[in-house]
Amino acid sequence: MIKHFIAGGLSLLSLAVQAQQTDKQVFEKIFDETMLHGEAYDNLHDLCKNIGHRLAGSPQADMAVRWSYELMQSYDLDSVWLQEVMVPHWVRGAKEYGEVINFGQVNMLALGGSIATPKEGITEQVIEVKDFDELKALGAEKIKGKIVFYNHIFPQNVVNSFDGYGEAGPYRWRGASEASKLGAKAVIIRSVGSAHDDFAHTGSTGFADGVKKVPCAALSAVDADFLHDALIKEPSLKFKMVMNCEMLDSVKSYNVIAQITGTQFPNEIIVVGGHLDSWDVGEGAHDDGSGCTQSLEVLRTLKAINVQPKRTIRCIFYMNEENGNMGGKTYGAYAKGTNKEKHIAALESDAGGFSPRGFNVDTTFLSHPKFDELVELMSFYGAYKFEVGHGGTDIGPLEGAGTKLFGLSPDSQRYMDLHHTENDTFDKVNKRELHMGASVMGMLCWWLSEYGVK
Amino acid sequence: MIKHFIAGGLSLLSLAVQAQQTDKQVFEKIFDETMLHGEAYDNLHDLCKNIGHRLAGSPQADMAVRWSYELMQSYDLDSVWLQEVMVPHWVRGAKEYGEVINFGQVNMLALGGSIATPKEGITEQVIEVKDFDELKALGAEKIKGKIVFYNHIFPQNVVNSFDGYGEAGPYRWRGASEASKLGAKAVIIRSVGSAHDDFAHTGSTGFADGVKKVPCAALSAVDADFLHDALIKEPSLKFKMVMNCEMLDSVKSYNVIAQITGTQFPNEIIVVGGHLDSWDVGEGAHDDGSGCTQSLEVLRTLKAINVQPKRTIRCIFYMNEENGNMGGKTYGAYAKGTNKEKHIAALESDAGGFSPRGFNVDTTFLSHPKFDELVELMSFYGAYKFEVGHGGTDIGPLEGAGTKLFGLSPDSQRYMDLHHTENDTFDKVNKRELHMGASVMGMLCWWLSEYGVK
Repeated sequence: MIKHFIAGGLSLLSLAVQAQQTDKQVFEKIFDETMLHGEAYDNLHDLCKNIGHRLAGSPQADMAVRWSYELMQSYDLDSVWLQEVMVPHWVRGAKEYGEVINFGQVNMLALGGSIATPKEGITEQVIEVKDFDELKALGAEKIKGKIVFYNHIFPQNVVNSFDGYGEAGPYRWRGASEASKLGAKAVIIRSVGSAHDDFAHTGSTGFADGVKKVPCAALSAVDADFLHDALIKEPSLKFKMVMNCEMLDSVKSYNVIAQITGTQFPNEIIVVGGHLDSWDVGEGAHDDGSGCTQSLEVLRTLKAINVQPKRTIRCIFYMNEENGNMGGKTYGAYAKGTNKEKHIAALESDAGGFSPRGFNVDTTFLSHPKFDELVELMSFYGAYKFEVGHGGTDIGPLEGAGTKLFGLSPDSQRYMDLHHTENDTFDKVNKRELHMGASVMGMLCWWLSEYGVK
Repeated sequence: MIKHFIAGGLSLLSLAVQAQQTDKQVFEKIFDETMLHGEAYDNLHDLCKNIGHRLAGSPQADMAVRWSYELMQSYDLDSVWLQEVMVPHWVRGAKEYGEVINFGQVNMLALGGSIATPKEGITEQVIEVKDFDELKALGAEKIKGKIVFYNHIFPQNVVNSFDGYGEAGPYRWRGASEASKLGAKAVIIRSVGSAHDDFAHTGSTGFADGVKKVPCAALSAVDADFLHDALIKEPSLKFKMVMNCEMLDSVKSYNVIAQITGTQFPNEIIVVGGHLDSWDVGEGAHDDGSGCTQSLEVLRTLKAINVQPKRTIRCIFYMNEENGNMGGKTYGAYAKGTNKEKHIAALESDAGGFSPRGFNVDTTFLSHPKFDELVELMSFYGAYKFEVGHGGTDIGPLEGAGTKLFGLSPDSQRYMDLHHTENDTFDKVNKRELHMGASVMGMLCWWLSEYGVK
């Protein structure tokens, strides 16, 4: 009996070792195929250089949808389709103008969703604050009718630059709303970014219900310092801002979707995606052309090495992550509503096409019976860090469908330098880094298709 | 007795925990100081833009020595001095010229140490081989009098790009020597680099004893493909190369050295360094202005936060790593010869100023009693990977003095794109990445100064 038991134990062990060796071999095949023949980089070049930036609702976003659909069709996948999404349509209009009166012009970029100034602009005294506490301490009396200038410096003493975004981001997200509550006429912020340069960073801002919308824009870090220094010299100086942005009617757009259908569990879906839209500056290279082209590379690679996943792997290029997330919400509602498919897992790449360092995962995934094996296999490729964390904005609504969410976690140091600026261009993407990321995404998707999420 | 024993155990444990908390606090201080006030990036800018590339023996190398000495003196360290080093003095001369006859001109760069062609150049038939096996199979009969073209493609399916360098590098290091043995008149190689672009990569080549030196140069990857394609169309085509390089007499130069003297064990030395010389193209930004400015930042940071190391931390800007390593050899000989100082450890940064991912270490360091604690502390900063591996070329000769060697191991994906090219310029360096690297170097140096190498 004891003998039998040991033998049984050994044979189970030997099966487990064998399985892991097979997994290792598939991982190697995926890596070799993506690194040697990957097309994500060339596809991203095409998207960035022949279409460029592509804010939801723009003609370029339409072009990008068509481009994506044709590209997916060219890969001979099992299905390719479009999912209709109604998206907001904000336009910047003529380039904004910012000037520190008596000192000079500055690099300024309207925040996404901002309203315009009157045609002649707003020329008003500036009240500088470094944070919300200073704003509140000043109160309505000092703020009313003025331009509030949030000069909150991006904290560099963070290991992950997304933590810096977490600290400085709120001044973009709700700074205008808070200042408007106290009667501010307009708001300018120091760009939420890690580089000290001339590029202003845009991005969404929002107003709490019932709060009057006011024009809001970001200055480059260099020009935020310029304004700060000018205010020291002349505390009552005025700032002139002219902005021409406008929210038009919502328009129809699409999520673009392709899949390899699972051989054993075709109705169990693993989503892999990024967002196709970008801000209306730069080329949306890291944010998030990278994530889209990497996600499609996952399917191309599996197809090229002739690996048939047991579960369906579905690639989604989401529309409108940047200013509304209507693509994510629309797809999430579909997934929740259908009883034909079960979305077991979703992986998003939306933190830049940099060297992969791991994945953000759902808490429950840490107790997956094969979790340690996966971490060991992935560590070889430098993707060792599996931490509980954010999956991605587009896939967020899938949580309501019971889906486990995963986010590619690349090296974060450069992302916040480029994010939402004219500087987020193709030349900032490194081919090896982009393809390394795509390869570990392919490994995770295949592994999930093999073992499920338990 | 049992009670006493437990109490004793607890108090030891509590001391250990306390020590670790103190280490953690020092690490945090180092991180904050380097990330918030670090000067490595600005110093590197100054070196790259106001001096530029600086091959040993060149006027720029002299300028760099003076610049370094003055910079070190400005930091109010305990000692700053120069160590005399005799260095080889190779010069490129007038820009080389390469042409595929009937097809067009190419981007070509002489390999470091190459001899010149005759004034009128060499115009000869090209024999393309992809590796040494093909060369040998052809033999002297087919090679004699011809130009050998090594077209060995950099392998992209490596996780660490230095492994690709290990595979493709030998064609640069000894390709000319092997071809010359078979009577080749000259040698051209496909650049040893990971990017497919127009930049040719230089770097040292060597000839075995008694082998006749022949002119040798590298083509950019794009032009290696161009030549390859031309050879398919016209197998007997000729290639013209004109090179004007020359080895002059050795000249006097210097290692530039500064230190903070240890409070308890001033004669136990921890070296931290990089190399000041670079190839004679680009700006030597990642290779290795980064390593120098990071090493000096270690001292600046410790001084700024007023942490007094128990052992001496000595920063060395080595001269002549690229084509002779005379700085490393000279310092190594000093360390071996002195009985006044014991060099317990040396850390080099010469793999680029990219995001740190860990350290290469000596095998024996893995059994340091506090090794696990160190790894845990460092992991927080993303430097988790402590692997047995190469410390650095400059510090290599210290092994003879019984020194434990450490090498900063940054993310490797971009290094081989830039290495030894016109493209290794300051704009390729990211401030956060450079300073992250400097901060973990500072942590390791301080920790070694506190606990020794055991």
